[in-house]
Amino acid sequence: MAVISPSRRLRRTPFSDGVEAAGVKAYTVYNRMLLPTVFRSVVEDYHHLKHAVQIWDVSVERQVELRGPDAARLMQMLTPRDLRGMLPGQCYYVPIVDETGGMLNDPVALKLSEDRWWVSIADSDLLFWIKAMAYGYRLDVLVDEPDVSPLAVQGPLADDLMERVFGGGIRAIKFFRFGWFDFNGQSFAIARSGYSKQGGFEIYVEGTQNGMPIWNALMEAGKDLDVYAGCPNLIERIEGGLLSYGNDMTRDNTPHECGLGRFCSTQTAIGCVGRDALLRVAKDGPTQQIRAISIEGDIPPCDRIWPLMAGTKRVGQVTSAARSPDYDTVVAIGMVKITHWDDGTELTVETSDGLRAAKVHENFWI
Amino acid sequence: MAVISPSRRLRRTPFSDGVEAAGVKAYTVYNRMLLPTVFRSVVEDYHHLKHAVQIWDVSVERQVELRGPDAARLMQMLTPRDLRGMLPGQCYYVPIVDETGGMLNDPVALKLSEDRWWVSIADSDLLFWIKAMAYGYRLDVLVDEPDVSPLAVQGPLADDLMERVFGGGIRAIKFFRFGWFDFNGQSFAIARSGYSKQGGFEIYVEGTQNGMPIWNALMEAGKDLDVYAGCPNLIERIEGGLLSYGNDMTRDNTPHECGLGRFCSTQTAIGCVGRDALLRVAKDGPTQQIRAISIEGDIPPCDRIWPLMAGTKRVGQVTSAARSPDYDTVVAIGMVKITHWDDGTELTVETSDGLRAAKVHENFWI
Repeated sequence: MAVISPSRRLRRTPFSDGVEAAGVKAYTVYNRMLLPTVFRSVVEDYHHLKHAVQIWDVSVERQVELRGPDAARLMQMLTPRDLRGMLPGQCYYVPIVDETGGMLNDPVALKLSEDRWWVSIADSDLLFWIKAMAYGYRLDVLVDEPDVSPLAVQGPLADDLMERVFGGGIRAIKFFRFGWFDFNGQSFAIARSGYSKQGGFEIYVEGTQNGMPIWNALMEAGKDLDVYAGCPNLIERIEGGLLSYGNDMTRDNTPHECGLGRFCSTQTAIGCVGRDALLRVAKDGPTQQIRAISIEGDIPPCDRIWPLMAGTKRVGQVTSAARSPDYDTVVAIGMVKITHWDDGTELTVETSDGLRAAKVHENFWI
Repeated sequence: MAVISPSRRLRRTPFSDGVEAAGVKAYTVYNRMLLPTVFRSVVEDYHHLKHAVQIWDVSVERQVELRGPDAARLMQMLTPRDLRGMLPGQCYYVPIVDETGGMLNDPVALKLSEDRWWVSIADSDLLFWIKAMAYGYRLDVLVDEPDVSPLAVQGPLADDLMERVFGGGIRAIKFFRFGWFDFNGQSFAIARSGYSKQGGFEIYVEGTQNGMPIWNALMEAGKDLDVYAGCPNLIERIEGGLLSYGNDMTRDNTPHECGLGRFCSTQTAIGCVGRDALLRVAKDGPTQQIRAISIEGDIPPCDRIWPLMAGTKRVGQVTSAARSPDYDTVVAIGMVKITHWDDGTELTVETSDGLRAAKVHENFWI
């Protein structure tokens, strides 16, 4: 693995001191910010995540705030998901598309009130797209990046830990809903959400100065729960079929190709700039789609596209892969053409270290 | 220094195989792509750059292509620099601003023809801003990221090396002009430009498959010139006052604060979306500005903002710093308030490793 040169441009977070004290071993860069990827080891972190509770610095999920009378109209311009029924206190996973239906980001949107939204973004400068859209349409809305940094608490013991710091009311939060909870006399939005399948919460920490006090309070309160610093885990997220923007999908892909058709209501999402482009694919379906892929044998790190071959014919690509201890196989995410995406289809994958046998699966490992 | 986890999201470049073969020691991530930062050592690379010739993989300078009848109108919307006199074959350094005059990027624009431009970007998704602007204004223009990856040839022997591969015509290219030159029967735009003060060229390598053949041809042709792989050098670029977007300036800053007022023609840049916001600052001048700063003693890596203090009063910040062998001092770039920006002003800088004496300079080390 290569070394990363420090600079101000690769931003630290309100929790960086805690992350370093916990012995972070590796990072990725995400939205020009440092995102931890390994604490003890990817495999140790994986087992721990499935059995205990972890605190994740996911400040890289930068917020784009939309505020003003046209905020809701602007939100609907961004996504083919129909937002009309969405209430304050709800989180929606919203594919964001350009005018051709290409994915620009796959954030979670929080509706704070009718005229105020946070968009908790994946790895692209969605702020630029939203600001220019607001400007071009002369919308009455402020668009900016507030000083809000999400801190995730993930794992089976997340409810127990969160109750100790934020009170019993935390248990009542439903999946993809958020409520407001006090800490040191300040109120924070806390959602039941997160980039793992182990359950947990995301605390939207407003104010950089509140970062380490909340981090420390959680670490202190969870000692007997075996709490530890953690981060999105490559193995667990692939097992769970959690896509990564930039890895498994890009601007080249429609939401339907990404298996996100269920989050699109293209007929009724009136105002969405990509609606016209997506109507046809919504009706006919895509010609390639995300699939779970298993791979035999050992693999190098997946740092580039690995072509999926049926004989000499290229029928797709693998973009994320890791060996799973629990399932004793290499689990992977790929995009596969319609002709070869059926469950059980046997293919070959061209890794950067040679050919491997691969198989398409109907479902991820959940 | 921390380790970086590999993933497809942090894109390899057409020259990555060459970079790895040359023994790259560290990277940064720039436009979601790997940018080498060290080959032999920052200091060795620095001396070599000033005395020989280096090949730099600067693919991270992604291109945004604007093509169509409204391309020139859209370009002028993006920047306060007056583009009316710009001819095909010219490169312009163009501050890009939002509607508040805040810097979104500081690219070099290449005018290929009246209706076709490349914008060679710094580290932000300018594509999103330009695409949305084109959409909001219903402009008749295609905006996309073409398969073009710049390869820089920098150093005092750059002309000698380039002549061997691209012919003697290369010597006639003037500063910030580009011409078209053949390699293996294909034509490439080559500009006299680059992110160093040592002189040289940038080859706009179109087509990923052409990357390694050009890299290898330059390496082979330059053996007796002591050619080596290189990269933008932290020390040399600070000495030369070359700003880094995301380090020394952000969306919070106007071009005038960044000392880029000479690239703004706010009165005549009609159509620029930030023009109204910038008219006042263009007339009155900014209240803080980029300055060369020298620092006494040893410093840690500058991985965050270092406040500049006059006694207990904060009067600015340092955002890039490195020890210069040639000038035997720590050279730095900072933003300083008008009250304290005069040449020779003595200040204190709060590094992450304690206080150091600092001094403001009128000029960079060139």
